[in-house]
Parts: sequence; C-alpha cells; structure tokens
Amino acid sequence: MVQSIREKLLAMLLENKDTYISGQMISEKLGCSRTAVWKHISELKKEGYEVEGLQKRGYRLISTPNNIRPHDIKSNLKTKFIGQKIVFQEVVTSTQELAQKLAQEGAKEGTVVVAEQQIKGRGRLGRTWESPKGSGIWMSLIIRPNIPPFQAPQLTLLTAVAIVQGIKKATGISCEIKWPNDILINGRKIVGILTEMQAESDRVQSIIIGMGMNVNTTSFPDSLKQKATSLLIENDGKEINRAQLLQAIFEQFEILYIEYLKNGFEVIKLRWESYAVSLGKIITARTLTGEITGYAKGITDQGVLLLEDYEGKTHEIYSADIEISSQS
Amino acid sequence: MVQSIREKLLAMLLENKDTYISGQMISEKLGCSRTAVWKHISELKKEGYEVEGLQKRGYRLISTPNNIRPHDIKSNLKTKFIGQKIVFQEVVTSTQELAQKLAQEGAKEGTVVVAEQQIKGRGRLGRTWESPKGSGIWMSLIIRPNIPPFQAPQLTLLTAVAIVQGIKKATGISCEIKWPNDILINGRKIVGILTEMQAESDRVQSIIIGMGMNVNTTSFPDSLKQKATSLLIENDGKEINRAQLLQAIFEQFEILYIEYLKNGFEVIKLRWESYAVSLGKIITARTLTGEITGYAKGITDQGVLLLEDYEGKTHEIYSADIEISSQS
Repeated sequence: MVQSIREKLLAMLLENKDTYISGQMISEKLGCSRTAVWKHISELKKEGYEVEGLQKRGYRLISTPNNIRPHDIKSNLKTKFIGQKIVFQEVVTSTQELAQKLAQEGAKEGTVVVAEQQIKGRGRLGRTWESPKGSGIWMSLIIRPNIPPFQAPQLTLLTAVAIVQGIKKATGISCEIKWPNDILINGRKIVGILTEMQAESDRVQSIIIGMGMNVNTTSFPDSLKQKATSLLIENDGKEINRAQLLQAIFEQFEILYIEYLKNGFEVIKLRWESYAVSLGKIITARTLTGEITGYAKGITDQGVLLLEDYEGKTHEIYSADIEISSQS
Repeated sequence: MVQSIREKLLAMLLENKDTYISGQMISEKLGCSRTAVWKHISELKKEGYEVEGLQKRGYRLISTPNNIRPHDIKSNLKTKFIGQKIVFQEVVTSTQELAQKLAQEGAKEGTVVVAEQQIKGRGRLGRTWESPKGSGIWMSLIIRPNIPPFQAPQLTLLTAVAIVQGIKKATGISCEIKWPNDILINGRKIVGILTEMQAESDRVQSIIIGMGMNVNTTSFPDSLKQKATSLLIENDGKEINRAQLLQAIFEQFEILYIEYLKNGFEVIKLRWESYAVSLGKIITARTLTGEITGYAKGITDQGVLLLEDYEGKTHEIYSADIEISSQS
C-alpha cells in the first residue's frame, strides 16, 4: 500500500490523537520540509480536522470531520488492494457508471469510486436509488475475479457478509441479510447492494459492486419510515464515522474475497446463512414472470434461492423481490 | 422497418436490375423531385454503383460495388429489428468497444456496428483479432434478451447457427461449428464470434455479439495458412457480396432469436449439434487451469461442453481452446 504524504501525516496524527507531535519529528518521518508540514496541516484544517499547533510542543489532533476523501479512508486502512485506490467525487451521476467506465479503461482490482451525492443513483432492475448529500455512503468497488459469469451472484452474497461484519466491527450494531441484496436492522433496510459485471460469455472481465448505505440519515420521509432506517438511528442517534466504517468493510471484504478465491464459495455460504433472515421461513417471491409463495429452503452453491411451494415442488429463484410472511 | 430515400432508391434499382426505370416513376414512388433522384444516383455512382442513365428510357443498374454502408445492407433487408439500425465507420478501435458504448447509452436491440477496419480488434480472452481493410466483415450486434447471465453462452451458439445458415443461403457454401465460437470450412477458420455482456448478477442488460469474418481475403500469411481460410478461397476465387451475406445472416439470426425467446434453447441446440464438428470425437481442451483430453459427449442446455475423460469422469468445460485429435 502506497501512501501519499497527506495520508501518512493523517495516520501519524490519528495514532497520536490527544498528544503533541513536534513539527520537527513529522518533517523527518515524512521526509518533507517543516513548511510543507505546515501547509498540509492547513489543508486538513480546511477540511474540518481540528488541529492545535503550539510552538515548542507541536501539533495535536483534537477532532476529525466525517469526511470520506481518499486520505480520510486510506490513512490506517489495513488492506493489500481493496480501497487502496480511491476515486472521490463530490457529485456523480452514479458511482456504478463511473466505475464501469474506469473498469473498461483498465482500472486495477480493488479500485473504489466514492461520492458524496449521486444524481442518478441506480438500484437493482434499473430502479432509482435515492442518494442525498452528506449522510450516506454511495460507492462502487471494482474486482476482477477469474470466474464464469454464472458465479457472479456469489459476490453479492460475499459482499453482504463483508458489510454485516464491517458494520459490527465499526459500530457494534448487528444486521441481518435479506436475499438477495439487502442488509436490514429489525426488518428495515440499511444497505442495498447492486452487482453488475462486464463479461465474455464464459469469463468475467470485471465485477462492479455498488453499495448504498444509510449511515447518518436522521429521518426518512413517511413513505419510507416502515421500510428504511440508518445506522445513526439504530445507534441511539450517535453519528457514525464513515471513513472508519468503510475501512472496516474493506478489510472484511478483502479477507473474505481472498478466502473465496482460494477455497471457493462454501465457507462464505455458511457465514451468509448464519446472517440470513429470509431462510427457514414462508416467503413470497415476486419475479418478472409471476409470484411464488413457499418455504425458503436455502441457497445453492451459486447463490440461487431455493423455494419449496405448497405442492412440494422446489423452485430456483434467480431474481426476485421477496417478502417475508408475517405469520412465519 | 423505416427506409431512407437512398435505401428505397437502391432497393428499386436492385429489384429492376438490367432494366430501365424512368426518372419520373422513381420520383413519384419516392415522393421527391427528379433533381433529388439525379443527386442520389450521382452519390451512388461515387460509391461505386454503375448506373446507366439514358434520356427517355431512364436509369439502369449495371453493377454494385462490394460496400457495407447502411443503405447497402438495409435495402432489401427482410428483418423486423436485427440490422435495421446500422452504425457504419470506416475505421474503429474495435466494433465491440463502440457497440458497448452505444449499448450503455441505450441503443435499441438489433443495432449493428460495422467497420471496414479495426485498429484494435479483439478476440476471446483478450486476444487480438486481425481486421485488415476491405476484405472482411467486422461487426457487433446489440441484443437485450431478458435472461440470466448464465444463459448468455446460448447466444454464442445461436449466432454460430445463424452464420452457418446465412453463409449457406447467400453463397451455397457449407460450414461447420467448432465449440465454442469458431466457424470452419474443412477445418480452417472462417468466422470467429465474441460474445460479451453487461449484466446485473441475475439479469442481462445487454449482449454484444462480435463477428469477424474472412470474406474476400485472397491469401493468408504462412503462419495462418493451415488455420484460416476465406469464403472467396472456398468459392473458387469468386468474390462474395458482403451486404447480401450480412442480410442473410441478419435474417437467419432474427428467425432463430425470436424462436429462442419464445421456446427456449432446445431447438437451437438441436440445430447447433447438427453443424458441430467437435462432438462425438476425442478432443483436447486447454483451459486456464490445465488440459483435459477426452470424448466430447455433447453440450448442456446452457451451452457448456461435456467432456468424458479416460477414467469415465465427465467434465463441464465453460471456457477452453479445443483441439480435435487427428486419430478421431
């Protein structure tokens, strides 16, 4: 992992939070002049970092803003490649669209596109995804696994596991997974995942995993109140540090992804099942061709949902909106 | 099918080839002035159409050039949507790349990109594809079937059938198919197919089918002589009309594709098997992970090759280069 001077400086300040580090020591460790250190500190202040500077004692980090610029995410990020290249934009049409363009231009595996706001955020099946400024995390991750296209749904499930584990690690909050791509807390949606790929008919070229997370949203419109929640709401109103949350998710993702490439989907599947709220229950699946109600038996090795109807016939559900029956 | 005036004029001349049509009749049928007719005829002459114009008798088409501009292909094209929108460029990096861009911008199903020359033509697995000017057909077709990604290989096989049937119809020449994506004559390659898709993990957004065809190539470099041939070489040196060949392929493709969307892959599979040269033989499949030699038993409903090795174990081959053993 190659760090910029800004990232290294921020990492030093964070590691020594609440204590002073001398400008001399910083300039030696970073290999730049004291004037350069002073300039970088000024830039950090402009971004909302509170840094106290005292003659003779040095610099002390008092508080961090809730930013998700590359150096906010990358300082202290403990991964080999996931999130080590971050493309940040204040406003994008959609992070998926930009990530797809970068992937076609050859962007490296692990590259992440993050934005504060999406104008045309996309959900599954071409639906829109509300992505207001400031409170959420709207991002897309580029990976290039050497797998056939039919295995791509496995990556959606792997991502869901990484997010549940990352949220737990960063905030202590427990979430559950609703097949195929929603993360819920107490039945309300907190994260949506959109997996798209570019592929030859027998080989994936790139997979773009989009994640939309309601992090510090304080309230939802009436139409969404029963369906959506945010980490802040579930955290007794306390704000969540978005950069730390992303670090935790990237780190969990990388561990699971390396495991997946080495040993296949089996272990990921077991973890996924342990978080799944939709298995072992009576559910209704609305597909493009109709509606099936039945018992959710499990998922296949490809991530396909197995639904047993009342006549005992098992259906393989590739794509659907599912609803968990209240009686189950 | 909406035709331009140029396309309609060309269709009239082609239908009445070797006989005269009066300028008056043309102008009435096309609903434009006789001066406009004269201008369109002049443009066609510039493109290489030989048209005789006699006072009192009218215009007579003597010969057509071997062009593949939109009006060359679209006049007399009997399809509902395949090839009804054609984007022609003299030179492109690759027709796949341009078609992908158009697909992302919302291009309609059936849109075709054709070029006289590709600078960076692509084959399967990121290989290069030689696409010199003039003698071949380099094109990409955009379709939007509502299928899950794992069914995409079926479209490669469907395309192979359409090409074999189209070549037979336009030239009388019989070809055979080598799994997964080559069309051969007497064991030598004449067409390559590259199927790429953009997809959500459970739903195809667009499939781009690239076809590279050696049509009027007169000779190949020594390194390719044993591997490649052209329709001209196999047609006793007689030149093939490329626009007519494309029309035949588009028409066959549309028939098969509508059949596929309505009744599934079964019928296509039967046709494919009847043209397949690689089934029922001992073949060696080189995959990314190794080499397997065995008996090619058939293909699955998803287009996956079934290979039985010498120990009786059946392997599902998703992606490979195959070689047919000389002893089989």
